[in-house]
Amino acid sequence: MTYTKVNCDCIMISFDRKIIIITIEEGVSGYYNISVLDIEKMVEIVPTIAIHGGAGTITRANMSAEMEAQYNAVLNQVLLGGMEVLKNGGTAMDAVCEAVRLMEESPLFNAGKGSVFTSDETHEMDASVMDGSNLKAGAVGGVQHIRNPVLAARAIMDKTRHVMLIGEGAERFIKSETDLEIVESSFFFTQNRLDQLHRAKAMKKEEEQQEQQEQKEKTKSSVVILDHDGANILALDRKYGTVGAVALDGNGNLAAATSTGGMTNKMPGRVGDSPIIGAGCYANNNSVAVSTTGVGETFMRTVASYDVSAQMLYGNKTLEDAASDVIFNKLPAVDGDGGLVAVDKHGNITMPFNTEGMYRGFIKLNEQPNVYIYK
Amino acid sequence: MTYTKVNCDCIMISFDRKIIIITIEEGVSGYYNISVLDIEKMVEIVPTIAIHGGAGTITRANMSAEMEAQYNAVLNQVLLGGMEVLKNGGTAMDAVCEAVRLMEESPLFNAGKGSVFTSDETHEMDASVMDGSNLKAGAVGGVQHIRNPVLAARAIMDKTRHVMLIGEGAERFIKSETDLEIVESSFFFTQNRLDQLHRAKAMKKEEEQQEQQEQKEKTKSSVVILDHDGANILALDRKYGTVGAVALDGNGNLAAATSTGGMTNKMPGRVGDSPIIGAGCYANNNSVAVSTTGVGETFMRTVASYDVSAQMLYGNKTLEDAASDVIFNKLPAVDGDGGLVAVDKHGNITMPFNTEGMYRGFIKLNEQPNVYIYK
Repeated sequence: MTYTKVNCDCIMISFDRKIIIITIEEGVSGYYNISVLDIEKMVEIVPTIAIHGGAGTITRANMSAEMEAQYNAVLNQVLLGGMEVLKNGGTAMDAVCEAVRLMEESPLFNAGKGSVFTSDETHEMDASVMDGSNLKAGAVGGVQHIRNPVLAARAIMDKTRHVMLIGEGAERFIKSETDLEIVESSFFFTQNRLDQLHRAKAMKKEEEQQEQQEQKEKTKSSVVILDHDGANILALDRKYGTVGAVALDGNGNLAAATSTGGMTNKMPGRVGDSPIIGAGCYANNNSVAVSTTGVGETFMRTVASYDVSAQMLYGNKTLEDAASDVIFNKLPAVDGDGGLVAVDKHGNITMPFNTEGMYRGFIKLNEQPNVYIYK
Repeated sequence: MTYTKVNCDCIMISFDRKIIIITIEEGVSGYYNISVLDIEKMVEIVPTIAIHGGAGTITRANMSAEMEAQYNAVLNQVLLGGMEVLKNGGTAMDAVCEAVRLMEESPLFNAGKGSVFTSDETHEMDASVMDGSNLKAGAVGGVQHIRNPVLAARAIMDKTRHVMLIGEGAERFIKSETDLEIVESSFFFTQNRLDQLHRAKAMKKEEEQQEQQEQKEKTKSSVVILDHDGANILALDRKYGTVGAVALDGNGNLAAATSTGGMTNKMPGRVGDSPIIGAGCYANNNSVAVSTTGVGETFMRTVASYDVSAQMLYGNKTLEDAASDVIFNKLPAVDGDGGLVAVDKHGNITMPFNTEGMYRGFIKLNEQPNVYIYK
């Protein structure tokens, strides 16, 4: 049995896949009135996991049957691996960490092994986790030698009083205070990603030349050219992205985890939304667990993950409506693209994206995994 | 004249200290119905700035008259300096950067010169800015040689497609792409802060010994000892904190900026809420500009700055009610302490804190500064 203090008068008790919400009000003469609220919420909680492996220009036209089969197979394995954790009594936090760890291990995704290259031809990885039962969170930014950044994020949550550690300080802590595996940078190498970097550099050069040309014409004619905020470059070659997972366990606990190699050809030191609590990752037992993928900067500027929760809690929106507003209104308003996966406290799932495709899937207890790639 | 697209049908036009909100609806036969809404909002916007210089255990009992006079003098100068920018036609963003820069220059505050020491006896500084007119943002984390981190955050917003750069990557960008001043670490040194570090190390050692003792007793008696989440250590010696500023300019633009040296004796690599958009800093012309100070981890876990905006926009709360809920309910629920300053789009100001004191103040156009330290 676990309990969460919702506010000063209200306690949520979870036991045996049921939830009761109890309110305590101070009565006269030192007595307290105790009432059981939301009795209809004593429904069975079905353990649920949803994952994403990145959003972007993923279409049937540019995907071979063989690649499609590979992605489907890994997404299935990841969902089954995460559910196995829940079946064995693991928490939602345990399950999202395992699901994300499995995707970090796969070179198909831009996280852990298979991470993209910075403009310096190095790897800098970011990850975060959040536990909806106590709002604890952990994050790493710019780490280069930790095999599984998501486990490092969790270790920071579990073993320190801090939420976020970056760079060498983060690595030093992981080396000295945990058993997590430290690897050479070459561990993260894949030829695919290096080819992507070279394409990205070539395209950036081309775009810069084009911009210079436009600038000249603009100066000549005084015609205002709209600033597209570099959305094209940011989205460039982003068919393989960030990974993430959200889960609801049988005790009504929500958790989220996100991990990424960032953007191909990013400036060294650039940190996107993945390790930012509220942007790339958020979980709260009272509302929802969210993990995002896409042009990270726009998820940071819109505080996208927390916005889903805030619209549900303060605006009484459904999960579906809140998540849709973020992906189809808020993000496009700042030239953002991408998607998210989310599960709410009742086990509802949503996986909206405004790109051509998103590697994604979900699984419910004792059911088969469901995986999708295209619209 | 500036305009902000509020949503797909609604445009906010600001000119000459007035605001009009116009909605455009598609009518029949390709015609559009254009209506001017919220005509009562054509009130004069009074340029406003609010600042903080940190919250913590600041009481009359532990403050000399001389120190009090010094703080009051600097807070006054900072407010006048920020307002001078607005008077000279600067934007809200220009004003918050100048106010924070002035506090970074003062050794009295834990930002820029006068930053606290990490456990390695180094300085690692974080800062962020957000522009409410376009939701653009910039941030630096873990920089060691940039004289004014707030100006680095702004440069990242202005000159890159990224929001956040950290560590050496951030410094390399600032050195190569801006004229900002790079300094030796010794520039940030103050004897006060080194003394604080030594006190913090001594107290941490003492607390660890006490914890070991408690652990032994716990094992013996099986009595559950509540986990206080290290709040005491985190709050230790935090009478001088983070700095921040929020501003509303005559065109109705809101902006926020926050800068910090972090926590005395922090682990190298630790990043708090100050550079996290939505946690330590948030601005949106439709709602509010917020800058926070306190135990950063708790502001990250509660997404505190954005929460003020979300409660106003989705929950129809007033600025006062939204900010109070964050500081007096949300933060204490995760053992957090601290405060914030905020100004909303109408020029309302709030400066709540749940500690014993907070260096703070505000100024309105053509009025004298108002500065406060205690409750």
